[in-house]
Amino acid sequence: MSAQVIDHRGPDFADVGKTALDGMKTIFKTEAGRVFIYPASGTGAWEAALVNTLAEGDRVLMYETGHFATLWKKMADRLGVRAEFIEGDWRGGADADAIEAYLRKDTAHEIKAVCVVHNETSTGSVSPIADIRAAIDAAGHPALLMVDSISGLASVDFRFDEWGVDVCVSGSQKGLMLPPGISFNCVSDKAMEVSRKGGMRRSYWDWHDMTGPNATGYFPYTPATNALYGLNEAIAMLHEEGLDNVFARHARHARATRAAVRAWGLEVLCRQQGQESGVLTAVLMPEGHSADAFRAQVLRSFDISLGNGLSKVADKVFRIGHLGDFNDAMLMGTLSGIEMALAKSRIPHSAGGTAAAMAVLEEDIPAAIAAE
Amino acid sequence: MSAQVIDHRGPDFADVGKTALDGMKTIFKTEAGRVFIYPASGTGAWEAALVNTLAEGDRVLMYETGHFATLWKKMADRLGVRAEFIEGDWRGGADADAIEAYLRKDTAHEIKAVCVVHNETSTGSVSPIADIRAAIDAAGHPALLMVDSISGLASVDFRFDEWGVDVCVSGSQKGLMLPPGISFNCVSDKAMEVSRKGGMRRSYWDWHDMTGPNATGYFPYTPATNALYGLNEAIAMLHEEGLDNVFARHARHARATRAAVRAWGLEVLCRQQGQESGVLTAVLMPEGHSADAFRAQVLRSFDISLGNGLSKVADKVFRIGHLGDFNDAMLMGTLSGIEMALAKSRIPHSAGGTAAAMAVLEEDIPAAIAAE
Amino acid sequence: MSAQVIDHRGPDFADVGKTALDGMKTIFKTEAGRVFIYPASGTGAWEAALVNTLAEGDRVLMYETGHFATLWKKMADRLGVRAEFIEGDWRGGADADAIEAYLRKDTAHEIKAVCVVHNETSTGSVSPIADIRAAIDAAGHPALLMVDSISGLASVDFRFDEWGVDVCVSGSQKGLMLPPGISFNCVSDKAMEVSRKGGMRRSYWDWHDMTGPNATGYFPYTPATNALYGLNEAIAMLHEEGLDNVFARHARHARATRAAVRAWGLEVLCRQQGQESGVLTAVLMPEGHSADAFRAQVLRSFDISLGNGLSKVADKVFRIGHLGDFNDAMLMGTLSGIEMALAKSRIPHSAGGTAAAMAVLEEDIPAAIAAE
Amino acid sequence: MSAQVIDHRGPDFADVGKTALDGMKTIFKTEAGRVFIYPASGTGAWEAALVNTLAEGDRVLMYETGHFATLWKKMADRLGVRAEFIEGDWRGGADADAIEAYLRKDTAHEIKAVCVVHNETSTGSVSPIADIRAAIDAAGHPALLMVDSISGLASVDFRFDEWGVDVCVSGSQKGLMLPPGISFNCVSDKAMEVSRKGGMRRSYWDWHDMTGPNATGYFPYTPATNALYGLNEAIAMLHEEGLDNVFARHARHARATRAAVRAWGLEVLCRQQGQESGVLTAVLMPEGHSADAFRAQVLRSFDISLGNGLSKVADKVFRIGHLGDFNDAMLMGTLSGIEMALAKSRIPHSAGGTAAAMAVLEEDIPAAIAAE
Repeated sequence: MSAQVIDHRGPDFADVGKTALDGMKTIFKTEAGRVFIYPASGTGAWEAALVNTLAEGDRVLMYETGHFATLWKKMADRLGVRAEFIEGDWRGGADADAIEAYLRKDTAHEIKAVCVVHNETSTGSVSPIADIRAAIDAAGHPALLMVDSISGLASVDFRFDEWGVDVCVSGSQKGLMLPPGISFNCVSDKAMEVSRKGGMRRSYWDWHDMTGPNATGYFPYTPATNALYGLNEAIAMLHEEGLDNVFARHARHARATRAAVRAWGLEVLCRQQGQESGVLTAVLMPEGHSADAFRAQVLRSFDISLGNGLSKVADKVFRIGHLGDFNDAMLMGTLSGIEMALAKSRIPHSAGGTAAAMAVLEEDIPAAIAAE
Repeated sequence: MSAQVIDHRGPDFADVGKTALDGMKTIFKTEAGRVFIYPASGTGAWEAALVNTLAEGDRVLMYETGHFATLWKKMADRLGVRAEFIEGDWRGGADADAIEAYLRKDTAHEIKAVCVVHNETSTGSVSPIADIRAAIDAAGHPALLMVDSISGLASVDFRFDEWGVDVCVSGSQKGLMLPPGISFNCVSDKAMEVSRKGGMRRSYWDWHDMTGPNATGYFPYTPATNALYGLNEAIAMLHEEGLDNVFARHARHARATRAAVRAWGLEVLCRQQGQESGVLTAVLMPEGHSADAFRAQVLRSFDISLGNGLSKVADKVFRIGHLGDFNDAMLMGTLSGIEMALAKSRIPHSAGGTAAAMAVLEEDIPAAIAAE
Repeated sequence: MSAQVIDHRGPDFADVGKTALDGMKTIFKTEAGRVFIYPASGTGAWEAALVNTLAEGDRVLMYETGHFATLWKKMADRLGVRAEFIEGDWRGGADADAIEAYLRKDTAHEIKAVCVVHNETSTGSVSPIADIRAAIDAAGHPALLMVDSISGLASVDFRFDEWGVDVCVSGSQKGLMLPPGISFNCVSDKAMEVSRKGGMRRSYWDWHDMTGPNATGYFPYTPATNALYGLNEAIAMLHEEGLDNVFARHARHARATRAAVRAWGLEVLCRQQGQESGVLTAVLMPEGHSADAFRAQVLRSFDISLGNGLSKVADKVFRIGHLGDFNDAMLMGTLSGIEMALAKSRIPHSAGGTAAAMAVLEEDIPAAIAAE
Repeated sequence: MSAQVIDHRGPDFADVGKTALDGMKTIFKTEAGRVFIYPASGTGAWEAALVNTLAEGDRVLMYETGHFATLWKKMADRLGVRAEFIEGDWRGGADADAIEAYLRKDTAHEIKAVCVVHNETSTGSVSPIADIRAAIDAAGHPALLMVDSISGLASVDFRFDEWGVDVCVSGSQKGLMLPPGISFNCVSDKAMEVSRKGGMRRSYWDWHDMTGPNATGYFPYTPATNALYGLNEAIAMLHEEGLDNVFARHARHARATRAAVRAWGLEVLCRQQGQESGVLTAVLMPEGHSADAFRAQVLRSFDISLGNGLSKVADKVFRIGHLGDFNDAMLMGTLSGIEMALAKSRIPHSAGGTAAAMAVLEEDIPAAIAAE
């Protein structure tokens, strides 16, 4: 990514652009879908998904999985869409049954899209996308299924084609291990068709402006050239390890982290079994203790940056990330730092979290290593 | 820019963000204006300027200086604005008198904004922004003055406050010497006021969402963190040399380049004296010769990448860039390569272009060097 | 270090060279000494120390602290010096009393130098240089004191002037955190005087060829220019943290590491209390288990690279490094990896090493953090 | 080269070391020779060549081609070798006939080696190595042929096996385009045999210590690991272009440079036709003008760093480099800067040097480009 900037209209650029567009299809696990790459952060790709498919006044169904789902709903409201929210307690993924029930009541099929967050970074919960697809189908409802997998893609399992997703929104700075600055839409034929005649007035985000130049690896306006070099490298690294191995690695670290949290006598925010995120684990602070003061302590003492609680859970949770280029030793270093900081900050807890995590890691050895 | 990504909500980020926002004010030469930084390329910042200030159906006056002015107009059209175009011949900047005359006829003051491109990259012409401000004032017209200086800022003189600009759009990849990926709006109090009650439905581009977090160096959504490191370094480099010295350096290289073009017997596309760009010089190919074939030749033989002609002048001009970190030897290398390629490609021309350029450079010595 | 190579005879180089030479004096803690920088690895700086001060047939006293002391002795032998070796068991630093006794017997003062390794990387032991100086003085012996601190300098306390060292040999790739490729001699006036008339035939390593050009920041032959940029940055980083804080950080990590080793029921190779290295801890494998097989396991499973046992202790010890840019979390990650690998490899041990290390770290909090 | 430092005793290092050692054989054009890589600059590799093959008191024949030949002779003197010098006027390569005549007189075969500089950087002359080999053979003399190609290798033609060289000395910072810091010996079987029983006392430079570890890609002491990454990349780049294409590129630039010098009415230092270097061209300043003042002017005004005159030609010549990653435009930029500085500094000269150079480049088009 520190290479010279090349001419994005020159002959050498086509290969960079084509490799990125094709490579992202393998990450989304799609053959039928089209990928669009925006020089924008993930919030821009949210907007792109909405303005290409929805008109002002259209109804959409969203699900309150946490902070980011709430922000996406606010964006929809501001863009003039009538976003309806199934309320959630921020302690699990979206409930497919609730979505099905909601859609069944919409006999006029006014709801144009169901929007859910795949991996809710603010809570560490994962929504069951395949179940939600099944729920929409069971209700016989034609709404598009639009999924935010900004923080999930390339870290936890995602299958665009198999799960019948219509639009998936993602970004560069989580599972793709890049600086923020580029973001993605992956779009089904059905959604392309909807956008052809519909959506709002738009220019920067328009999918159809992209398809012509994209066909040969170019873009209708200046792309973030150097980020694309990094993207191509990141995709190659993911396939070298194997996407499924990456997912397994994160899931195993999540299990070990939860074991540590339980051993400390603390509570994991996500309480839906099977919906805990492989990307991060959010931990509830004991009543009467500030999560942010604790996070500041951990940063100062151990140079470990924990995520903060956002809006409803502000100062009530801290979030332990275990995504990207992360291994057992890095996880144990992180958990040890937290355990030491719990002691130093006199947070009521039991010792032994790191030992519990270690026990999980020892027992639950990846096949690749076990075979050695 | 190859540093680790830091947490854009963490304590260390505030300083990075504040330095960037304050630093850009010195580059725009503004004290009163507000700067907004988008994780987007310049096209996004165009859209931001339009959606924050204009409603659907609003009339705006634009001026056809070249390809980029035309693209901006198309964007306005697509967003539902009624963009009116004063036609131009692509051989100079915008004509302030024509703008004044146009505005005088709009006695009802329906025109909400005058939009001009400062440095038209497709032609190498610079519009006289101060004159255009004077023209608007002479017509007693309340329209906003919105300027695209994507390729001009930090390369040719620009004065936001002194020239009475209301919105200036810019980007990272020209005078700021960065990869593409971040772009800017600089906004006057008047434009902020207009946008408060007006503009279109918007979210990603909204100025008012930015002001709160920006006050302490943060952003409402994920910024392109690593590009901001580069931006802060670029701003420091520009001030180390001195902005006015940078402008003088580019202007002198432009003069030498024009001397070479004249000596070759070729024609510079910009024919308005005093409006020639310091950033680049567009050169007309003799009738019957393909500019693109010539550019391909120059790239193959000398590894020099010339700009191509866009739309109306496609294949008719080639463009010589002399912006960024560029010195006399690099200019002479470029011009020598072109002169050799003219000979090799049997383009009708006189030799001696490089000698003519050298004569200009020798005569026209920067004060700093002359003093030595 | 990835900057363009600059002309090492040009005007800008003087500052780079001077900063490096002066900066290294602060690292050696010397005002009177002269620093020489070689484009060579540490082995070259060993040779430089010998050939500048000793003639063929000269007697020198060396001390067998471990593998590197043995290699240095072999080098002396090959260069024609009569190196005499006080044998050691590789489980502590050099014994000052033994040195004093040896020198007292040399009433003719034939021994020209006493050579000891400060931080013996192969064993994790530190020799008491100040005591050895006192021993030489107590014996009333004029021998030079030559110290190899290739792996000690900038990681464990070293005081050239205060401890009366005559020649200190060091390198770039340990405490200075650089790639290997440059190495150092720090030389007292007494040693300079000895070398003026003495030493062996030499050219590349000659101190006196260096002094002239060094005075203005230049070198008699091509220096490793880019490594010098890195060196200047490393020196600045060390002073930013404070040399004594760096030493304290490593010593605390060494204490925690030993606590872990003891809790595992394993044995630390160094058994001289007070001579344990802050740079690394060598651990004896239980009888009948291969240290190298264990190291390979740790590398495969946890991507942690442990040091191997060298010559006499080959396959019998593994070495845990805790030098350079290292913090509590990284140490705990390393120790956790080792504890998990001990279990996985069925090495007889008790669990609880990481808990013991954590207890040391929690109790023994650096003043800077405790104050927060 | 900015990668993490890896363990030079670890399993991954073997491949790095082996690739470097094998790759350098292709650059030296040898199958029979052995390559040794030193963490040292070129001066160290000079010393290595001498101490491995010569004993104190041995006679060697050297040839005064310029400053570097003189320095190498001084080194030989200091190491106790009896170096005899055929004097030269610094205006051409070594004279094979003079060498043959000298050797014929040595009927006792006391002379153990003939040492010549291949590309004399101080003068821009190349010695005819194949002719010198023939001269030695014609004289029926058994002396080793030792060649310094520090600045020639990978820039001008060199053929270790075909030319019957016994020891070739080289370095990283010229044709291999790396920072200084590693250097090379390439050694014939005959020289290996001589060194087995002969040479001086030595340790760091000893060839025979290297052969064991080198066989599997390792080194007997710490190598400059990161420089080896760069070396492997440089070798790949050279073969991608083709070594012979690299030589042709430099030779063509040298011809154009000489045309410019002649057109200016100045004199090239090398006056032996066919021995002008492709690496650099040294130019004599007109009587009464300081070359160093002129060089300072060129650096200030054009940021072009010219080489200085060394010892005998100090302040009398400036040197124009045209090696490494260099193309026509860069050469023309350099020559234009010099021509402008000649004018500015009022050095008596004719204009038109750049035009003359351009004419050569236009006429003398590389086959690869001409074919397009």
